Amino acid sequence: MLKAGLRLGGCARAWRSVRMASSGVDRQKPLANKVALVTASTDGIGFAISRRLAQDGAHVVISSRKQQNVDRAVATLKGEGLSVTGTVCHVGKAEDRKQLVATILDINVKATALITKEVVPEMEKRGGGSVVIVSSIAGFSPFPGLGPYNVSKTALLGLTKNLALELAPKNIRVNCLAPGLIKTNFSSVLWMDKAREDNIKESMRIRRLGKPEECAGIVSFMCSEDASYITGETVVVGGGSPSRL
Amino acid sequence: MLKAGLRLGGCARAWRSVRMASSGVDRQKPLANKVALVTASTDGIGFAISRRLAQDGAHVVISSRKQQNVDRAVATLKGEGLSVTGTVCHVGKAEDRKQLVATILDINVKATALITKEVVPEMEKRGGGSVVIVSSIAGFSPFPGLGPYNVSKTALLGLTKNLALELAPKNIRVNCLAPGLIKTNFSSVLWMDKAREDNIKESMRIRRLGKPEECAGIVSFMCSEDASYITGETVVVGGGSPSRL
Amino acid sequence: MLKAGLRLGGCARAWRSVRMASSGVDRQKPLANKVALVTASTDGIGFAISRRLAQDGAHVVISSRKQQNVDRAVATLKGEGLSVTGTVCHVGKAEDRKQLVATILDINVKATALITKEVVPEMEKRGGGSVVIVSSIAGFSPFPGLGPYNVSKTALLGLTKNLALELAPKNIRVNCLAPGLIKTNFSSVLWMDKAREDNIKESMRIRRLGKPEECAGIVSFMCSEDASYITGETVVVGGGSPSRL
Amino acid sequence: MLKAGLRLGGCARAWRSVRMASSGVDRQKPLANKVALVTASTDGIGFAISRRLAQDGAHVVISSRKQQNVDRAVATLKGEGLSVTGTVCHVGKAEDRKQLVATILDINVKATALITKEVVPEMEKRGGGSVVIVSSIAGFSPFPGLGPYNVSKTALLGLTKNLALELAPKNIRVNCLAPGLIKTNFSSVLWMDKAREDNIKESMRIRRLGKPEECAGIVSFMCSEDASYITGETVVVGGGSPSRL
Repeated sequence: MLKAGLRLGGCARAWRSVRMASSGVDRQKPLANKVALVTASTDGIGFAISRRLAQDGAHVVISSRKQQNVDRAVATLKGEGLSVTGTVCHVGKAEDRKQLVATILDINVKATALITKEVVPEMEKRGGGSVVIVSSIAGFSPFPGLGPYNVSKTALLGLTKNLALELAPKNIRVNCLAPGLIKTNFSSVLWMDKAREDNIKESMRIRRLGKPEECAGIVSFMCSEDASYITGETVVVGGGSPSRL
Repeated sequence: MLKAGLRLGGCARAWRSVRMASSGVDRQKPLANKVALVTASTDGIGFAISRRLAQDGAHVVISSRKQQNVDRAVATLKGEGLSVTGTVCHVGKAEDRKQLVATILDINVKATALITKEVVPEMEKRGGGSVVIVSSIAGFSPFPGLGPYNVSKTALLGLTKNLALELAPKNIRVNCLAPGLIKTNFSSVLWMDKAREDNIKESMRIRRLGKPEECAGIVSFMCSEDASYITGETVVVGGGSPSRL
Repeated sequence: MLKAGLRLGGCARAWRSVRMASSGVDRQKPLANKVALVTASTDGIGFAISRRLAQDGAHVVISSRKQQNVDRAVATLKGEGLSVTGTVCHVGKAEDRKQLVATILDINVKATALITKEVVPEMEKRGGGSVVIVSSIAGFSPFPGLGPYNVSKTALLGLTKNLALELAPKNIRVNCLAPGLIKTNFSSVLWMDKAREDNIKESMRIRRLGKPEECAGIVSFMCSEDASYITGETVVVGGGSPSRL
Repeated sequence: MLKAGLRLGGCARAWRSVRMASSGVDRQKPLANKVALVTASTDGIGFAISRRLAQDGAHVVISSRKQQNVDRAVATLKGEGLSVTGTVCHVGKAEDRKQLVATILDINVKATALITKEVVPEMEKRGGGSVVIVSSIAGFSPFPGLGPYNVSKTALLGLTKNLALELAPKNIRVNCLAPGLIKTNFSSVLWMDKAREDNIKESMRIRRLGKPEECAGIVSFMCSEDASYITGETVVVGGGSPSRL
C-alpha cells in the first residue's frame, strides 16, 4: 500500500504527510504507535521534521528520490536511537514521471493531492489520521522571481482546506505549515547574498532566519491528539514576517 | 500578436483579461480608446463583463472556443450599438490542446498565466494596461465536491499577486474578481435544487444569488484610471458570503 | 436627524459614510439623487472622496470639527459647480466629548459604529443605502510605532463585516476602503523623511505613494448600484503593498 | 509586580497571557521552570489551559474576579498534584473599574494591551517570554447578534500583530488562539438550542463542538521553545469552520 503511494507521487519536493492511527495520548511520546511517512525528508525542513516525529514516538518512513540520500538520513537517525526506515520513491513509468515533474504546479499540488489520496485507505483502516502539507509564506506574499513556486504554494493553502473538508468524515485532519525564510540548502538562493539576507531580515520581527528544527515542533503537534479539533488550518513559522491577518 | 495569444490559451474558462492604453479619463466613457480582450465571454459572467466594458467605451474582443457562440454574442452586442469583434480561440496542435485541457488546474492557472504573458508585449507598446483575473469565492472557502476547481481558484489568488509584482514595472496592474454564487448556466449545479439554493442563501447577507451584471461593474472599474493605485487585489462579489477578513 | 448623528460622533477621524437612496442608474451620474455624508472631509482622502462623489452626481455634506475648514472645503467644491453643503460636527456635552475622544479605539471604532446607526433610520426611509468605512492597510500589517491606530484599523475590518451582516435586511450595504500609504498631511510623518519614504516604496509594487484622488473612485463605485452585490468587503488601495491573500 | 499587573487589568475576560523564562527544553516537561499567568482561568477554556500548562511543567497563577472561583480552581488543580497558586484580580478604584468594564471593546482589547505591558518588565528580567491572546473565530466571521464581541475579537487579531512587532526586540513572542465553537458555559447561548447547534455544526468539517481541552495544547505549544520562530500568528481551533485562507 505504502509502496504504491510512494510510487505515485511521494517524491514531491516540499510535501510531507504524516499518517497515524490514534491511540492513548502519552505526554512523553505523543506520537507513540503511529507511523509517519515524510516525503522529501533527507535534508532541510523535511529531515528536521522526521527527526522530531521519531523523537516524539512515531515510526518514521524517510523518503526521497535518491537511494544514497535516503541511506544517509536513515543511518543518521538510527544512530540517534530512533525508529526509522527508508524508501526510495521513484515513478515507475517514464511517461508518468515526465507528466509528474512537468511543472512545479504538478509536483507541488497534484502530487500532494495524489499521494494523500493514496494513503487515505491505510489511514481509514487505522481509524483516522493526520496530514500536514508544507506550503510557504510565499503562498501569501510572493518571493520575487519565483512565480510558479509561489503560485503552487498558494494552491496548497486551498488544497489544505479542500482535503480537510473531504476527509473529515474519515476522521482524517489536514493542516498546513507555511515556513518563512528558513536556512536550508533549498532557500540558500534567497540568503546567500549578505545584502539580500539583511534586506529580508528587515521585514521580520525576529531578526534572524529560521532553523529547520523550528518547523518541526508544529508538525509533531498537528499530528498529535492535542490538535484533535484543528483541521484546515495553516500555521506560519516565519519569525513574524508579514503574511495575513 | 493578439491572434497568437488566443491560440495559446485564450479559451481558458474563467479567465478574462482586459488590455488598454491609458488616455484622458472621461466620466461617461471611462474606457474610451481602450481595447478589451475578454475570454470565455459568450455567456454568463464573461458576457456581462463584455457588455459593460463596451458600454463604458472600450472596443471589446469576444472570444470563446465555438464559432457559433462567438457569432451570437457579437451579433447581440452589435445590435446594442456596441463596438465589438469576435475571435474563435483554438489551440493549434492537438497535443498542445490535450496538454492544455488536461486538468482544471492547467486550464485555470497555467492558461491564465500564459495568455497574460502573451498580451504583455502589446500592452507595453501601448504604455501599460490592466488585467483582471476571475477567481471565485470558492478559492477562499471551498464548494463541497468541487476540489480541483476550488484549488485552481485559490491558485489564481496567488497568480494575481505574482503577476502584479512582476508586471508593475511595465505599468500593468493585475487584479482579481472573486464572484460568489452567481446565477449562470455554469453554476446551475449548485442552485438548481431548491433546497440547496435555500441552504446556500442562509450563509449570505444579501439573501439572493447574484446576477452576472453585478460582477461587471467592478471589472470595468478595475480597468479604468480610477483604479490606478490598485494592484494585486481581489474583490469578492458575493452578497456578503463569508470569505476572509 | 442628520444633525443628531453628527453631534454624536460625526467628527470621527478616518471615517466616512455615504448615504443614498437608490434610483435609476445613470452612467454619467451614477450617484444622482443621492445624498452623501462624508465625515473628516475637509482635506486629504476625505476631501478627495467628497469631490468625487459630488462629481458623480451626489449631493455631498462636508463635515469636520472646525468651522473654518468646513467653510473652505465647501467654498472650493461650490466653486467647481458641485452640489455641497457643510456642517460642523461637535460633541455637545463636554463629558461626552471626553468620553468620545478618550482613545483612538473609541474614535475610530465606536464613533464609526454610533454614527452609522444614527444614519440608518434615514437610509431606511429612502429604501436602503450604502456605508463605506475607511480602515487602513495598517489594519492588516501594522505600521511600526502606531499600535493603537493599527489596532483600531483592524477592528474596523471586523466592524465592516458585522454591520454588513446586521444591516443587510434593511437593504444597506457596508464596505470598507483600506488605503495604503497615501500622500496626505495625516501620513506625512511616515514619508517626510526621504530615507523612510524610499524604504517604504521598496515594499510596493507601484513604486510611488498614492494620491488621495486614487482612493475616491472606489468609494464612488461602492456607493453606486454597480456594487449591488458587494457587502462586507474591504478593498485595499495600496499600490500592491503586501497585505493579505 | 504581578499583583500590580492583575490590579490593572488581569480580570479581562477572554485573555490569557503566559509568562516564562527560557530554559533547557525537556520533552516531558516543556514548560519546566516557567511561570504562567492565566487570566479568566477558573472555568471553560481558561481552566483547561491552566491545567495543561501545569501538566507541562509550568507553575500556574490562576486568576479571576471572584475569590471563591479562584479557590475552587486552585484546589482542583492542587488535588491533581499540579503547581498552582491563585490570585483574585480586582480593580482597586471604582471609577477605574467602571472605565475598565465600560464596554466589551475596553475589556477585551485595552485590558489585554495593558496587562501585557504590565508583565513585560518581569519577562524582560527573565530574558524573554511568550504571550498568547485568546481571540475567537468570530473575529474572522462574525457570530450573528454579537457585534461588539465580534469586533473586539477582530481587534485582538490586530493587537497580536502589533505586540509581536513591538516586543520582538525584548525576546517576547506574541501569538493568538482563535477558538471556534467550544462547549463552555460562556458559549452555551449559541448551542443550548438543539436546532441552533445542528445548524452550526453544518458549517464545521468536524461535526461536533470542540472541548475546552482541545484549545489547551496549542497554548502550551505556543509557550514552549518549540514555537521559537512563531510570532504574530493566530491559530484557529475550530473543527474546520470556515475562517480565512
